[in-house]
Amino acid sequence: MAEQAKKATAAKRGRRTDGGQAKEAIQEAAWRLFAENGFDRTSVRQIALAAHVDPMLVTHYFKTKAGLFAAIMRPPVEPSEAIAFVLAEGPDHAGERMAAFILRTLESPDRRKWIVAMVRAATAEPEIAAVVRERFAETILIPLAEAIGSSDPEYRATLVMSQLIGLAMTRYIAAVEPMASRPADEVAADIAETFQRYLTGPLSAG
Amino acid sequence: MAEQAKKATAAKRGRRTDGGQAKEAIQEAAWRLFAENGFDRTSVRQIALAAHVDPMLVTHYFKTKAGLFAAIMRPPVEPSEAIAFVLAEGPDHAGERMAAFILRTLESPDRRKWIVAMVRAATAEPEIAAVVRERFAETILIPLAEAIGSSDPEYRATLVMSQLIGLAMTRYIAAVEPMASRPADEVAADIAETFQRYLTGPLSAG
Repeated sequence: MAEQAKKATAAKRGRRTDGGQAKEAIQEAAWRLFAENGFDRTSVRQIALAAHVDPMLVTHYFKTKAGLFAAIMRPPVEPSEAIAFVLAEGPDHAGERMAAFILRTLESPDRRKWIVAMVRAATAEPEIAAVVRERFAETILIPLAEAIGSSDPEYRATLVMSQLIGLAMTRYIAAVEPMASRPADEVAADIAETFQRYLTGPLSAG
Repeated sequence: MAEQAKKATAAKRGRRTDGGQAKEAIQEAAWRLFAENGFDRTSVRQIALAAHVDPMLVTHYFKTKAGLFAAIMRPPVEPSEAIAFVLAEGPDHAGERMAAFILRTLESPDRRKWIVAMVRAATAEPEIAAVVRERFAETILIPLAEAIGSSDPEYRATLVMSQLIGLAMTRYIAAVEPMASRPADEVAADIAETFQRYLTGPLSAG
């Protein structure tokens, strides 16, 4: 059994000097290590080791660690599904549905892991922020604000993002009490109106 | 000149083997390095080097890097001053005054540096979160909610904290556009009602 596993690993390692599969192995290893240990604490060397490839290959395919992050970074939910869910009861319920959707997503350990990795990476590495904006605001939040038809959708998306990131930080990353142990539906209800106002309410600059 | 500087450094280094001054030098160096490079990227070794002391002394005085952070961590504003400012026009204007106060604090590069260091440290190191809660929620946000006389002041403080941290992240750390370059008073006005509701509005759990 152990012998078989060893052979399989050796065979895999052999295959991974080949372009396509090495690239895929790097992406898989990076995804796992970024989510588990955070962007800042994961080195290109560690990723290469976990993927059984030469570190030079990581640089060859992705230039930098931030480039690799950008390549594998996906929103943790399907954008069209998220938008449809939030708008299912019309614009007046968008805040409530969005709060419920966000809490549900963050309560799922797998999806949470990925959002936490994203927030940590953006905190540690300013160039990651552009990637987060692109993958997250441009695919979900801006289209959502546009679908609602509100003025200034790009700015509204960043207002929403500020509360969303702050919630992830306070409740899940720093786990500040008493918010960390409140029931998810209670927190969702208390934050819903914030999202509603950011999405459809009046803005100071009109 | 260079010779003088060298002598002064040598003299300083000499003095710093003495208890009190070594401790102070460690705290000063840590304060500067945490603010400039972040908690995660600053090592005990770097702090000791900057303070001209043996790394063992850092461990002797503060046990761990997190212990050192806790020892030097102060809110970037005077708590009583912040609370008085927020309540100056009565509870109905607390959200507006708080938003203005927070934006003004974050627009000041020196104070911002410290808040950013705090947020980064809490993101990277879960045990720092407890320190942030203690120094920040317990000295400013909870007393503020208590002064207003609202129900559940501890939970309200964490709701306020979630929007505050999210704002620091989005506008200042990740600098997500278009929020990053909006005028501070515009952002303050758009976020004011969120603070107001978290401080004095109804909560879902009554």
